[in-house]
Amino acid sequence: MRVVNIGLCGLGTVGSGVFNVLARNSSDINARSNCQIKVAQVGCRRDNSSCDLTAVDVTRDIFDVANNPDIDVVVELIGGTTVAFDLVMTALKNGKHVITANKALIADHGSAIFSEAESRGLIVAYEAAVAGGIPIVKALREGLSGNRINWLAGIINGTTNFILSEMDSKGREFSDVLSEAQEKGYAEADPTFDVEGIDAAHKLVILASIAFGIPLSLDGIFTAGITQLEPQDVAYARELGYSIKHLGMARQTEAGVELRVHPTLVPERSLIAGVNGVSNAVMVNADAVGTTLFYGPGAGAEPTASSVIADVVDVARLMNSNADSWVPALGRISSELKEQTLLNIQDVETGFYIRFSALDQPGVLSNVTKIMGDAGISIEAIIQREQPAGESYVNVIILTNVTKEKCLDEAVERIELLDTVRGQVNFIRVEYLDQH
Amino acid sequence: MRVVNIGLCGLGTVGSGVFNVLARNSSDINARSNCQIKVAQVGCRRDNSSCDLTAVDVTRDIFDVANNPDIDVVVELIGGTTVAFDLVMTALKNGKHVITANKALIADHGSAIFSEAESRGLIVAYEAAVAGGIPIVKALREGLSGNRINWLAGIINGTTNFILSEMDSKGREFSDVLSEAQEKGYAEADPTFDVEGIDAAHKLVILASIAFGIPLSLDGIFTAGITQLEPQDVAYARELGYSIKHLGMARQTEAGVELRVHPTLVPERSLIAGVNGVSNAVMVNADAVGTTLFYGPGAGAEPTASSVIADVVDVARLMNSNADSWVPALGRISSELKEQTLLNIQDVETGFYIRFSALDQPGVLSNVTKIMGDAGISIEAIIQREQPAGESYVNVIILTNVTKEKCLDEAVERIELLDTVRGQVNFIRVEYLDQH
Repeated sequence: MRVVNIGLCGLGTVGSGVFNVLARNSSDINARSNCQIKVAQVGCRRDNSSCDLTAVDVTRDIFDVANNPDIDVVVELIGGTTVAFDLVMTALKNGKHVITANKALIADHGSAIFSEAESRGLIVAYEAAVAGGIPIVKALREGLSGNRINWLAGIINGTTNFILSEMDSKGREFSDVLSEAQEKGYAEADPTFDVEGIDAAHKLVILASIAFGIPLSLDGIFTAGITQLEPQDVAYARELGYSIKHLGMARQTEAGVELRVHPTLVPERSLIAGVNGVSNAVMVNADAVGTTLFYGPGAGAEPTASSVIADVVDVARLMNSNADSWVPALGRISSELKEQTLLNIQDVETGFYIRFSALDQPGVLSNVTKIMGDAGISIEAIIQREQPAGESYVNVIILTNVTKEKCLDEAVERIELLDTVRGQVNFIRVEYLDQH
Repeated sequence: MRVVNIGLCGLGTVGSGVFNVLARNSSDINARSNCQIKVAQVGCRRDNSSCDLTAVDVTRDIFDVANNPDIDVVVELIGGTTVAFDLVMTALKNGKHVITANKALIADHGSAIFSEAESRGLIVAYEAAVAGGIPIVKALREGLSGNRINWLAGIINGTTNFILSEMDSKGREFSDVLSEAQEKGYAEADPTFDVEGIDAAHKLVILASIAFGIPLSLDGIFTAGITQLEPQDVAYARELGYSIKHLGMARQTEAGVELRVHPTLVPERSLIAGVNGVSNAVMVNADAVGTTLFYGPGAGAEPTASSVIADVVDVARLMNSNADSWVPALGRISSELKEQTLLNIQDVETGFYIRFSALDQPGVLSNVTKIMGDAGISIEAIIQREQPAGESYVNVIILTNVTKEKCLDEAVERIELLDTVRGQVNFIRVEYLDQH
């Protein structure tokens, strides 16, 4: 059996997972790859007590691994986008295939990395960069290769999904759940990357590039976090038959591509509404297959290792065949990647959930519905609920059909000017998922 | 661009789907495969009005396609296991790669077909044979290649899932829904293959071979249909927090492999319980990744075409590279496939739902629970409900923890002998899915 020498850079959570799963399942992995997969060197700042490194060459300098002539494949699991980028480029320049779990690196520097790899006849694989253990990159690049993708909707950040699930099932406040998530290790000390949707945006950009054949770029992607979400909206949504999820949405429209991450109402009966806790799921709608969904753990040592090792097996199997037989990095040969217009959020069409505070008196609703009608917005449902204080104002909640955001904004502005309406009109976007 | 000549055999539902999707999405498909995929010949008994065949060489004899020296890849979509087998073997003998959507063919003759292909250095691909448009073969063979699979649970027959969904949501009788399904074209005139679980067994055998590295064989798989299922059991299951699904279960245990298809209670809160109508889904539990789920349409012209074309792209990309770089037919090199003991259903451990009719008087339940205790079975829940007739007998419904079926059988036999119990004890297996 041909030996494939792996150089593992980084021995933190994911690195130790990869090391241990490769050791535990080596006979299955070798039977599947028809190679002997061997971790020949590990580069890490410190040993990890969960890994038995006695038989392994360990270096404290990860660049030793990228420069080691015996290494065939460098696995980058150090994270970040500066040293990791240097490491990956060094490995490629030294003729090594690269596997990474680093979403920020691929979203930020993917084009440069893929182009370097292509010019040198090397593979860069990154299944673990999106949705942890779910083989969604493979599903999109290969499993659905006969399709035109219409849209995809992903729960691709486990931290925000955990927080929303807790808010939904227990009526808790955002800040309260966040603290718990930080204690449990589901959220970082600085949770900005997760709760503001930046991490999800990185992953969405990668998925969208594959889905629509567009070059990787974070420019212009609309990103809204979950920090402003209130328990009352979660409860009203539930009452209307919806769950609130932090969705990454990518849609191909005639006018261009939509790329956006924001809190979203989805119908409770849709499968994705049942995805709770730190799990991830990506729903893909395509012209031939219709709607599919891919579910699994979005993070964690061994789930992520599962995806890294799937890449190891693919690379080991393919590395000695000619580059024409490899799946292109973004699913299409690079000359076929084409820029597309990215739609401004003002031009995006979704449904809307609207909440505002209005005087509990006749005529108020007719003014509001007239404004909606004038803006060409049709209404799916209206409910009125007393406010906790029990005063003369009530909460009005409206669910609209699919409409352009600029029309909604116009209507919102006019509603806020009504004497009978107090304060701001809050809104959350709605995806009906089955429609348009 | 290299031209790859496809010979399409069969132009029924799936064949026409493949033909039309290949035509419609040709520019995307060529960009993904880096080849020009061309349907060079179609073999069919009659033209299909949905397909524009003007530019295509059409023959009425499918063996013309298998013998045509210009054809690189034969796509078998005629169904059945006799002529289809001859066709596939002829194509292989003539040095052509083969793609098929035929589950019965692979389950029955896969070993012979794969061995012929391997000896000739050819690829046989069959993504569409299991779960229609869901790329589950790819997910198991490649996406989860770093894992040991613990178990998989599949809703892999759309007809039975449609029937069960209707029985569940509307309280309808089996025979009533079956008639409707036949009218709508979801069920065949002779529905035996679907409702008795034979079709699901074919698919389960394929999935289990890949999951556990065992040779394909239908021998000894336990198969029970849904024809005996009563609306009252669907309703009681719901009351207890469960849905009844017709599951294909494959589990690796220390004593051997379980392979079984039967009606199964699954927790309502599990994602697979929300898979309704003609959809399919496969849940996979593995040591590294944990639990994943793959959902999508299980049948239909274009969903099935989606999987067939994914295979076309893979084969087109790989056919000129050496065979070592191909994914082995069942995910492992053939020398690594190993027979395993198939567990008798008596030795399988599941939970059980039990229903029987008992006199509504003190002491009855204590006799029954004593029998369960003697058999080493612990009880999860008991409910008693008046029978519609409103007589002196009540329905007793018991949900047990996981226990060996032979213990349950013993207990059932003793319960049936009680004077206070009338008629038969009915039972349905339960999978808790999160446990053991």
